[in-house]
Amino acid sequence: MDYVQVLLDQYFSIKDSELCIQGLAIADLARQYGTPFFVYDEHILEHTLGRLRKALPSQFSVFYSIKANPNPHFLQFFIRHGCGLEIASLGEFHRALDAGCAPENILFAGPGKTEAELEAVLSKGIGEIHAESALEIKRIAAIADRLNIRAHVALRVNPTGEAQGGAMRMGGKPLAFGVDEEQLPEIIHYILSFPQLEFQGIHLFAGTQILDHAVLINQYRKGLAIAKRVAEHTQRPLATIDFGGGLGIPYFAHEQALDLDALHAELHQLMDEIQHEPHLQGTRFLIEPGRYLAGESGIYVARVNDIKISRGKKFLILDGGMHHHLAASGNLGQTIKRNYPIAVLNKLGQPNQEDVEVVGPLCTPLDTLGRSLQLPAVEVGDLIGIFQSGAYARSASPLGFLSQPTPPEVWIEQGVAQLITQRALYATC
Amino acid sequence: MDYVQVLLDQYFSIKDSELCIQGLAIADLARQYGTPFFVYDEHILEHTLGRLRKALPSQFSVFYSIKANPNPHFLQFFIRHGCGLEIASLGEFHRALDAGCAPENILFAGPGKTEAELEAVLSKGIGEIHAESALEIKRIAAIADRLNIRAHVALRVNPTGEAQGGAMRMGGKPLAFGVDEEQLPEIIHYILSFPQLEFQGIHLFAGTQILDHAVLINQYRKGLAIAKRVAEHTQRPLATIDFGGGLGIPYFAHEQALDLDALHAELHQLMDEIQHEPHLQGTRFLIEPGRYLAGESGIYVARVNDIKISRGKKFLILDGGMHHHLAASGNLGQTIKRNYPIAVLNKLGQPNQEDVEVVGPLCTPLDTLGRSLQLPAVEVGDLIGIFQSGAYARSASPLGFLSQPTPPEVWIEQGVAQLITQRALYATC
Repeated sequence: MDYVQVLLDQYFSIKDSELCIQGLAIADLARQYGTPFFVYDEHILEHTLGRLRKALPSQFSVFYSIKANPNPHFLQFFIRHGCGLEIASLGEFHRALDAGCAPENILFAGPGKTEAELEAVLSKGIGEIHAESALEIKRIAAIADRLNIRAHVALRVNPTGEAQGGAMRMGGKPLAFGVDEEQLPEIIHYILSFPQLEFQGIHLFAGTQILDHAVLINQYRKGLAIAKRVAEHTQRPLATIDFGGGLGIPYFAHEQALDLDALHAELHQLMDEIQHEPHLQGTRFLIEPGRYLAGESGIYVARVNDIKISRGKKFLILDGGMHHHLAASGNLGQTIKRNYPIAVLNKLGQPNQEDVEVVGPLCTPLDTLGRSLQLPAVEVGDLIGIFQSGAYARSASPLGFLSQPTPPEVWIEQGVAQLITQRALYATC
Repeated sequence: MDYVQVLLDQYFSIKDSELCIQGLAIADLARQYGTPFFVYDEHILEHTLGRLRKALPSQFSVFYSIKANPNPHFLQFFIRHGCGLEIASLGEFHRALDAGCAPENILFAGPGKTEAELEAVLSKGIGEIHAESALEIKRIAAIADRLNIRAHVALRVNPTGEAQGGAMRMGGKPLAFGVDEEQLPEIIHYILSFPQLEFQGIHLFAGTQILDHAVLINQYRKGLAIAKRVAEHTQRPLATIDFGGGLGIPYFAHEQALDLDALHAELHQLMDEIQHEPHLQGTRFLIEPGRYLAGESGIYVARVNDIKISRGKKFLILDGGMHHHLAASGNLGQTIKRNYPIAVLNKLGQPNQEDVEVVGPLCTPLDTLGRSLQLPAVEVGDLIGIFQSGAYARSASPLGFLSQPTPPEVWIEQGVAQLITQRALYATC
C-alpha cells in the first residue's frame, strides 16, 4: 500500500476530500501562509518519540540529530522532552545553545571538525566529542591543556564488515568517518596517553535509513563486541556506547515501517544477555536518530500553477520544487530516483485517473518531484503534498537556486498553526 | 590533458608552486578571508565575454543568464559590458534591477511563472517574456489588459528531434518546457488573438553544456526552420529569435573547450545564407549563456583539515564540501560522478604521488569532491582548489546543510581583492 495511506490513517483526518492537520484544513493554511510551504505536526513528533522511547530499555538515552531538521522549534521540542542533541558543526552547537540546551547534553560528531570548532565547544563545556582521527585527538588534548579542562572524548569506530539492509552502508569499507576497527588498539592507547582526555566509550555508525530491526540489532551486537575489546584496553567499564542513528522511515512503495515491538523485544533480550558483563556496568547506550524522529512530522505543500501536455505526457507544474526539497527530487544521493509519498491534498480518497509528471518551476529537468505518478484528475490551483518531509528536506536543499522565494515553515501544536520561518523573496545567505 | 593545466596556462601565474590570481597569492587570500571561499577573477569574465562576442555576428545580442551566478558583481559586470540579463524568477528580476539593469533589457523564461511574478515584471516594463504555455499566454494577456500595456511576448518552443552532444538534452521528448513544436500553429494563432500581446518571436533551448560547435549550429538551423514556419503564420518578420544558452565549458578529463573560431565561421556563413530571407529582416538573434560566461572565472578554495588512511585508502578531509558546491560532489543531476578539475593550489607543478579521496566535513559519504584523484603529496593545511566553479556552484548548493559556515565570495579586479559576500556562522535563510 502507498505509504500516504498509512500516514493518513495514522495521523490525519480528511474533510470533504481535504487533508486536515490537527483539525486545520490544508487549503486554509495554504491561503493563510501562501504556497509553497513546509508544515510540521507537533503531535506526530510527540507520538514518534513516545513510541521509540517505549521500545528502548531504560539504559538508553535519545539524542536528536540536529542535522535532520535544525529549526529551533524542533530543537526546543526535543529539549523539552528530555532528549540530548547531537551536533555536527559549530553552527549546530550555537543552534542547540540558543534553543536552551545545556552544553553537557550535547554530543559532537563529524569527520572534519576544525580547531576553531573544537576550541569553541570545549570552552563552553560540551558533553562529549566523538573523535574521528588521531590528529583530532591531538587537537582536543592540546585545547583541553590550554583551557585547563578535562575533555570527554569517545571514539567513532568504522567497523569491519557491513550491516545489511540500510540505504547507505557506512561500515566495512574505507571511509572518512571514524577510525578503522583494525586500528583500535593503537588509537585507544593514544587517547589514554593524554591525561586531559576523559575517555568515555565508542560511537558506531554503520548505516542509515534502516527499516529492519534485525539489522539494527546486528549492528548493536557488533558494537558491543567492539566495546568489549576496547574495555580490555581501558581496563574499566565504558561510560557510553553510541549506536548512532540509522533508524529509517518508509519513503517508497513497499517499504514498511520499522517494527518497534520486535526492536523492543530484541533490545530487552540483549540487555539481559549483557547485564553481568563487567565492562558494561553502568554504561549508557546512546542513539541519535534524526530522520526517524523528525521525518514523518513534515509535509511540503505546493500549488499546481500550470498543467500541460507535451507529446502525450501530462505535466503538473508546481510553484515549488527541488530548490526547496532536493531529496524528493532524487538529487540528494539517490542512485535510483523514486517518488516520495505524494498526494493531491484537496482530493484525498478520490480515485486515481491520471499518470502525471510532477515538476517544479526551475528551468531544468532535474526539477522533477514525481515521475509517472498516479493521481486523481488534477486542476490548476490544487495542492500537492509531499509527505515524509520533516527531515533532510528544507535544510538540505539549495534554497538560493534560481533566486526563487524561500519556503516558510508552519508549526502546528494543540490545534494552532504558527509561522516559524518567514518567506523571503529570495535567499540572501 | 587535465583541464586544470589549460586554465593555468591561460589565466593564472604560479609563484613558488603557488597559484596567483592577477598576481595575488592564493595563500594570502586564504589567510585574509579564511577558508573555504569562492574567488572570482574579473579578468577571466572579460576575456571570455570578449572572445564570445568576437565569434558572434553583429546580429547577435548576449543576455547573461542570471541563474548561473546571481552575485551582484556578476550582474554589474555584464550590465557594464552591455549585455542584457535573462531571468527565471521574480527574485532574479529584483536582483537585475538592483544591479542597475534597465527593465527593457531583461528577458523572463521559465516553465512555472506565477501570476504574481508576471504582474510584477510587466508592471515594471520588462523587455520580453518567453511564454511557455497557453495558460501563461492567457495570464499575460489578462495582466496586460489590467495594466493597460502591450506585453512583449516570445514563445518558447520544445523542438522535435534532438540536438546531439549536450549533457542534458531538452528537445524531442515530452517536457515541461515551452510548447511542443507540433502545437505551434494553434498556439501562435492563440497569441495573435490577443491585441494586447506584441509577438516577438521564438525561444529555443535544446540542450546544455554543449562543447561541439556543430551541435550548436545544428540547433540554430533547426531554430531558423521553426522560425520560418512561425513567420508564415504571423505574416511578418520575427523581431527576436532566442537560441538559448547551451554553450558548455570543459569539466572532465578529455573534454575540450568549444571551438569559437569554428563557431564564428559557421555562424557567419549561416548569416550569409539567411540574409535575404524576408521573415528574418531585422531579426535580432539572442543567446543567453550563463555557465559559459561565468563558469571559468571561479575557483572554490578549501583547506585540508585532516588526512587519514582507512583500509588502504587516503582521505583528504577539507573544511568545505558539497554544501558549498553540490555540483562538484556529483549530486546536481550527474548520473556518473566525475571529478571537477582539482589541484593543490600551493603545490602546482609538483609531480602527482598519491591516489586520494577528497571529502568534505559533512557526516555523509555524499560529501565527496574528488574520487581516486592523483595529487602531489598533500599535508594538513594545504589548499585544494576546484576550478570551473564560477557558475552553478554556490547558488546551486544546500548552504544550510548541517549548519556549516557559508562560504564568502572574493572578487578580484585590476589586481585588487574585495570581499563581496561575507561568511555567516550558518545560513539563516
